[in-house]
Amino acid sequence: MKNNRNRQVILKSRPANIPQADNFDIIESDVSDLRDGQILVHNRYLSVEPAMRGWVSSVANYSEPVRIGEVMRSFAAGEVLQSAHPDFNPGDKVMGMFGWQEFAVVGPAAVSRKIREDDLPLSLSLGVAGINGVTAYFGLLDIGQPRPGDTVVVSTAAGAVGSAVGQIAKIAGCRTVGIAGGPAKVAQCRELFGYDAAIDYKSGDLASALAASCPNGIDVYFDNTGGTISDIVLRHLAVGARVVICGTASLSSWDPWPHGPRAERHLLVKRARMQGFVIFDYAPRFEEALARLAQWIRDGRLRYSEDILEGIEHAPGAIAGLYRGENTGKQLIRIR
Amino acid sequence: MKNNRNRQVILKSRPANIPQADNFDIIESDVSDLRDGQILVHNRYLSVEPAMRGWVSSVANYSEPVRIGEVMRSFAAGEVLQSAHPDFNPGDKVMGMFGWQEFAVVGPAAVSRKIREDDLPLSLSLGVAGINGVTAYFGLLDIGQPRPGDTVVVSTAAGAVGSAVGQIAKIAGCRTVGIAGGPAKVAQCRELFGYDAAIDYKSGDLASALAASCPNGIDVYFDNTGGTISDIVLRHLAVGARVVICGTASLSSWDPWPHGPRAERHLLVKRARMQGFVIFDYAPRFEEALARLAQWIRDGRLRYSEDILEGIEHAPGAIAGLYRGENTGKQLIRIR
Repeated sequence: MKNNRNRQVILKSRPANIPQADNFDIIESDVSDLRDGQILVHNRYLSVEPAMRGWVSSVANYSEPVRIGEVMRSFAAGEVLQSAHPDFNPGDKVMGMFGWQEFAVVGPAAVSRKIREDDLPLSLSLGVAGINGVTAYFGLLDIGQPRPGDTVVVSTAAGAVGSAVGQIAKIAGCRTVGIAGGPAKVAQCRELFGYDAAIDYKSGDLASALAASCPNGIDVYFDNTGGTISDIVLRHLAVGARVVICGTASLSSWDPWPHGPRAERHLLVKRARMQGFVIFDYAPRFEEALARLAQWIRDGRLRYSEDILEGIEHAPGAIAGLYRGENTGKQLIRIR
Repeated sequence: MKNNRNRQVILKSRPANIPQADNFDIIESDVSDLRDGQILVHNRYLSVEPAMRGWVSSVANYSEPVRIGEVMRSFAAGEVLQSAHPDFNPGDKVMGMFGWQEFAVVGPAAVSRKIREDDLPLSLSLGVAGINGVTAYFGLLDIGQPRPGDTVVVSTAAGAVGSAVGQIAKIAGCRTVGIAGGPAKVAQCRELFGYDAAIDYKSGDLASALAASCPNGIDVYFDNTGGTISDIVLRHLAVGARVVICGTASLSSWDPWPHGPRAERHLLVKRARMQGFVIFDYAPRFEEALARLAQWIRDGRLRYSEDILEGIEHAPGAIAGLYRGENTGKQLIRIR
C-alpha cells in the first residue's frame, strides 16, 4: 500500500454539545507500513451514531474523549488488504474501531470481530447485525426483562437501535408502542417494524396517545431520548415497570446539567426500576446475540432500514444530521 | 368493653403537603361490640411514620387515601382484650393496622402478626423488629444487593429505617456512610449505629465530605430523602451502583411536581440502577426477615433508638415533627 493516500476525518475542535461539521477536518496522509501483528483494513462503511457526541465530549463519560487532532473514533466495516497477524488474511471481512478514515492500520485489539455472515450485506455488521442490534438485544432482554404480554414502549422507535428493540420485543411476545418524530418515521414503525401502535411525538398530545395505546400501563420503557418525552412516558408506568436508559439523545447538553421532573416518586409508587447500561460491558456475549440477530434477519423477522451517504466528505456533518433527525434508518458513510 | 370510651384521631381535612396537627381531630366514642370473627385490641403503642404523608394525600399513591372523618391509618401494637376469632385469645400480643386510637375492633385481616418475641419490648414490633426493620432488610438486601466490601451510603441514617439499613449493611460486610441532620444524629450514627463515617448535611459541604468518605465511589445508596441530598449523592456513584428509593422525605410536596437535575446520565455512564419498592409487596416474606432481625437485636448487633411521646393527644402533631427532624429514633405514641 506504499503511495496509497488515506483520507481521514480528524477532530479539529471540541464541540460545546452536538458535534458539527466544522468541528472536524479532512486530511490526507500516506498509509503507514504494517508493523508485526498489524493489519491493513480498507474501510467500506463508516458508522455514525448518537454515542459519538459522548466520545468527543470532555464531560465525564464511559470512555476517554477523542483527542484534538486524532482520527474520529468510529466503528467501521471493511476488508483486510494486508496482514502481519497470523489470525487475519487478505480478503477477511472485519468490523471494529477503525475510525473515520479510508484505510486503517490496526492491531488485533481494534477488531471487534470477523464477519462470518457472508450471506448478509457487510453494512449490517455496523447496524442491526452489529453494535445497534446487540445494544437492542441486551438492553431489552437483560435490562428490560420483558415477559410475554408486556407492553413495551420505545423512544426513537424507528432508529437503528429502537427499530430492533421493537421487533425483538414482538419476538418475545410483547405488545409494542413506538414513539418517533414525523409521519414518515411513524409510518415506518407501523409498516416496516411492525409496532402495534406508533405515536408521532411532534404532532398532538403524547400523553393522551400513550394513555390510549397503553391502557394497562407500560411494563418496559426502552429510553433512547431522555428529556421531555421520557418525562411523559414515566407517568404511564405500570407497577413493576423497567426503564432501560440506553441514551439521552433529546438532551443537547450536560453543561449546565439539565433539570426536569424528579423521577423518584414514579419509581417508588410503581415499584419501578430505571437502569443504565453500556453495551461494551456485554462484549463477551456479543456472539450469542449476533447469532440470533443474524438468524432473525434471515427469517425476515428482524427488518432494518439504512441511510447511506456516499463518500467520506459527508462524515463531518453526519452526527449533527442524526441529532436533527434527518436520517431514516441506520446512518452510514460508504467509502467509494 | 361496654361503656368503655375510645379516643380516636380522625382525619379532619386533607393537607396540602405535610400533615399538621390541625388536619386531625380527637373524638371520643363507645367501643363497639364484637361481631363474629372480630377481636378487640387495646393499643399500647401507635406508630408515626413518614409514609403517613402519602396515606392522607389525594395524589396517586400505592394505597387508597384515608377518608375525611376516618380514623387515621396507622400501625399499632397492643394486647387482645376480647376475641370472637378462633385464632386469637385474650392476652395475645398483636401488631397491625389498628389506627390512631386507644381501642380497635378489627377482623383478622388488620392483624399483621402475633408478636411471639416475648423477650423483646413490644414497641420494637413497630420499629426495628417490625415494619421499619423489614423495610431496611428487604430494601437493602433485595433491591440494593450489597456485596462485602461495598460502600453503602444511607440518607436519614439515624432514622428508624436508616439506622437499621446501616447496621444490616455492616453485618453484610460493607463499609457504611451515614448522612444525617445535626450533630446529635451524626453522633448517634457513629456511636450507636456504628457507621464507619457520618456526615452532617446541614453543616459544610456534603459533596466534599462524600468524596472524602467514599474514595472508590458509592456502590449502594439507600435513599430515604430524595431531593438535593440525593442529587449530590448521585454524582458519586461507582460503576454498577444500586440506588434504593425507599422514601422522598425531603420533598415536601408533589403538587406541583418538583424538578431537579436529571438522573439519566448518571445511570447511563455508571451502568447504575435506581429502583423503588413498597414494603407491603414483601408481606409473604416478613417472618423470614423478622426472625433474623430479632436474633440480631438479641445478639446486640442491631441497635435501636426510640422517641416515645406519652398520650394519644400527641399523635396529631407527630408527623409534622418527624418531617422537621425533631425526633431522635423511631417515633411512637404510648397509650397510657
